[in-house]
Amino acid sequence: MNETLNVLNNRISLRRYKDKPISEDHLEQILYSTMRAPTAGNMMLYTVLVIKDQEKIEKLSKSCDNQPFIAKAPLVLIFLADMQRWTDYLQHCDIKKFCKEKEMEYHGPTNGDLFLSISDALIAAQNAVIAAESLNIGSCYIGDIMENYEIHKEMLNLPDKVFPIGMLTLGYYPDGMDKTTKPRFGKEYIVFEEEYKRLSGEDFDNMFQHISKNFNPNNAFDAKNIGQIAYSRKFGSDFAKEMERSVNIMIKHWNK
Amino acid sequence: MNETLNVLNNRISLRRYKDKPISEDHLEQILYSTMRAPTAGNMMLYTVLVIKDQEKIEKLSKSCDNQPFIAKAPLVLIFLADMQRWTDYLQHCDIKKFCKEKEMEYHGPTNGDLFLSISDALIAAQNAVIAAESLNIGSCYIGDIMENYEIHKEMLNLPDKVFPIGMLTLGYYPDGMDKTTKPRFGKEYIVFEEEYKRLSGEDFDNMFQHISKNFNPNNAFDAKNIGQIAYSRKFGSDFAKEMERSVNIMIKHWNK
Repeated sequence: MNETLNVLNNRISLRRYKDKPISEDHLEQILYSTMRAPTAGNMMLYTVLVIKDQEKIEKLSKSCDNQPFIAKAPLVLIFLADMQRWTDYLQHCDIKKFCKEKEMEYHGPTNGDLFLSISDALIAAQNAVIAAESLNIGSCYIGDIMENYEIHKEMLNLPDKVFPIGMLTLGYYPDGMDKTTKPRFGKEYIVFEEEYKRLSGEDFDNMFQHISKNFNPNNAFDAKNIGQIAYSRKFGSDFAKEMERSVNIMIKHWNK
Repeated sequence: MNETLNVLNNRISLRRYKDKPISEDHLEQILYSTMRAPTAGNMMLYTVLVIKDQEKIEKLSKSCDNQPFIAKAPLVLIFLADMQRWTDYLQHCDIKKFCKEKEMEYHGPTNGDLFLSISDALIAAQNAVIAAESLNIGSCYIGDIMENYEIHKEMLNLPDKVFPIGMLTLGYYPDGMDKTTKPRFGKEYIVFEEEYKRLSGEDFDNMFQHISKNFNPNNAFDAKNIGQIAYSRKFGSDFAKEMERSVNIMIKHWNK
């Protein structure tokens, strides 16, 4: 296995960091590799916010579903799907006048642009993760940056045409850290050939077997199986409700 | 620079491939690394479709904004944001009965789930890109898979709770290929410290200087600057209109 595959295959979500700031040199290398990520039409429809201010990181640890480990991260990167920059640039380029002259309709960022810029932002984020990992800097994705939009808009000075899609906490691996990776679902349930395949009940029983065997019938949710636990803890949880509320407001701002 | 950074930093979007199928061993390695990508709550809210059928790849080259080079790719991977699998699994787990007993509201996939699963899918896609690159297999993202939803739904047997967010064409680098990377915008315009910064007209002039200096005043769009060209070719183009139409229909299916 080559070194790059080794980095990809052994990466874990790190939630405990060495008490040591990220060196400027390493941060520069991470950001350089981030910006080498593929981007639609070389347009770079994203922005990276580098957060080092400890007070701000503490606030984020609360606004991102109250996760205290976030506050201990020496570095946070926030990835914004960004059509504000291009919208402002087009304005600077007299785009409305041009469209009028050419009898073209001028429109601001669409939902299509939203998904393209979200793609750009996440692809760049994953380059940051891998660059960091190769430097012995662990990371954890915080999807909860999609919650509490109003708080983040104020805290991070976000204009309307910017959508915070991902956040990373970063820090050096603690010395002697055990990097045991978590098992994933079997490939036969995630990768299909030529077309999509709906799974059967038997497929699901097999797919979840490695989790089901550790199922605790005396769980806090009074759940009878893994699916009911997953719904209670994830899809039907309070944080999921908050994310849904917040995301819908972000979409409204995007489409203003 | 370590080997991984070297792979990240020198990757180009490859649109011309060696006439040689991807070996089974390499495909397995790519898919393994793909599935090691970080995923929200280890839930793997995505599906990868492996497309080798040449007829299908040719159809995709037409439905994805008529790009003939796609038809020459020996392998295509399509990344689906997927809440169908979990929706079906929750059903299999008697989720509605459980919610009724617990007086919880049951809801299907929300917009929050859409953005989480899109994140999962794109993060996995970038792992595929980097794994491939480390094996001398080049790739190109095709965001145009978001167009022509109805055609792709039929061709790929897509259920409602699945959103095709990204596609990759893959193939070995041609022998002796010149891997010259494209310049990106300056870091000062893409990476901000602590909070978002709107750029000024002067900032934009500087940011686009390396492109503006090659501006051709006798262009096909009768555009007076780079922004007007970008709007004509990208944001205001026919393919952008089609993407917007298609994406809005996908969102409707998701929320059915």
